[in-house]
Amino acid sequence: MTIPLDVHLKLGGIIFPNMDQCDFTGPFEALARVPNSSFLTLWKDKNPVRDLAGMQLLADTTFEEAPQLDVLLVPGGHGQEALMHDETVLSFIRSQAAGARYVFSVCTGALLCGAAGLLHGKRATTHWTALDVLPLYGAIPSRERVVIDGQLISAGGVTSGIDGSLIVVSLLRGETVAQELQLYMAYDPQPPFQSGSPETAPAHILATVTERAQAITERRMSTGRVYQDRMRMPGS
Amino acid sequence: MTIPLDVHLKLGGIIFPNMDQCDFTGPFEALARVPNSSFLTLWKDKNPVRDLAGMQLLADTTFEEAPQLDVLLVPGGHGQEALMHDETVLSFIRSQAAGARYVFSVCTGALLCGAAGLLHGKRATTHWTALDVLPLYGAIPSRERVVIDGQLISAGGVTSGIDGSLIVVSLLRGETVAQELQLYMAYDPQPPFQSGSPETAPAHILATVTERAQAITERRMSTGRVYQDRMRMPGS
Repeated sequence: MTIPLDVHLKLGGIIFPNMDQCDFTGPFEALARVPNSSFLTLWKDKNPVRDLAGMQLLADTTFEEAPQLDVLLVPGGHGQEALMHDETVLSFIRSQAAGARYVFSVCTGALLCGAAGLLHGKRATTHWTALDVLPLYGAIPSRERVVIDGQLISAGGVTSGIDGSLIVVSLLRGETVAQELQLYMAYDPQPPFQSGSPETAPAHILATVTERAQAITERRMSTGRVYQDRMRMPGS
Repeated sequence: MTIPLDVHLKLGGIIFPNMDQCDFTGPFEALARVPNSSFLTLWKDKNPVRDLAGMQLLADTTFEEAPQLDVLLVPGGHGQEALMHDETVLSFIRSQAAGARYVFSVCTGALLCGAAGLLHGKRATTHWTALDVLPLYGAIPSRERVVIDGQLISAGGVTSGIDGSLIVVSLLRGETVAQELQLYMAYDPQPPFQSGSPETAPAHILATVTERAQAITERRMSTGRVYQDRMRMPGS
């Protein structure tokens, strides 16, 4: 059931310091081209935001200025951890989610949605290094690349947001529009190696990347346990 | 033959108004994480640059400040047409190419390399709508997703830059590093539709997207013919 083309759609996505830019920019490519729609890049202010690897992005709209969106994109990246107790960010996600058609998390953006309380009883995915964190937010983790559970659409690590964005477009405007965008984007991927998932990567590659992520994974688990404890003790 | 890890690598990429941001941001994801390297985002100045769909990016380094790079990333997008006679841009590409290990074009960034005179006798690719423009710059067009011809590496439309960037990483630092980045990026693509290339897209999808690109394609052909004519009449 897509939305009639004469209904203007408002889409938007959050950016934040030390995000993984590709979680945002990959989906932007398709989402910002949905017919009869506008796309807003959102943050607390309009100062430059540096991603984890140093790319500088600018928001065009602050949280305060933002209208109710039809779709809210929530990217991830290590910087997500710094926002897990940031009520400005979490209440923005929560209040937008209350009126949005879809909340679309990419990578560890799912954990932000978790901290905002959106994952209770929901099937969801995230970056493969963080899948074990999801149950601490009440979610049922899935290893699918893109998971749809009602209003919540979640994509796995980084580049999975591209696959997810084409699914979001198809839900909004139908498969023809999504296919047109896929062709425009020349999205006919031909990875030069078979190392894109823990299931296909050589064991030594998996060991290295897991080891490198260990510190942030432990912080994410720890933050998740705090959330879980709080939920178990209402009023405390 | 990769480069010894103790050799620091300088990588950089151009941004420009009305570029297609994903041509740049897709490859950035891998290129900015090459071990013992730095990545510079480059433009004439440090004012915000808006991509074709409105995303705002900021350069951290001007052309004048830029050191000789080991790899220069040249993205495309409609805004490339406005730079095809811009000597500031073309001479920057040309002078960097003279000392770089690789020039890596994505999408219609190949046409900028063409206007800079880098494509004579080279096998190259670009966005599928612009393949016929390449011979006007002396190139031998290829329908491969990523083409390597000596120093010049070219990727096809938009998302092909992701595949290309992993190949560039493997040339610089070896396949293990590229595979580690692929796993970090969870680059195990699962396109929800089979519409990513002119060969696989349904006929009506191909017709629509081709038609939509007609005006820019014609401008690109026209610009290419001017270049071709000039090359045929040296000194004129």
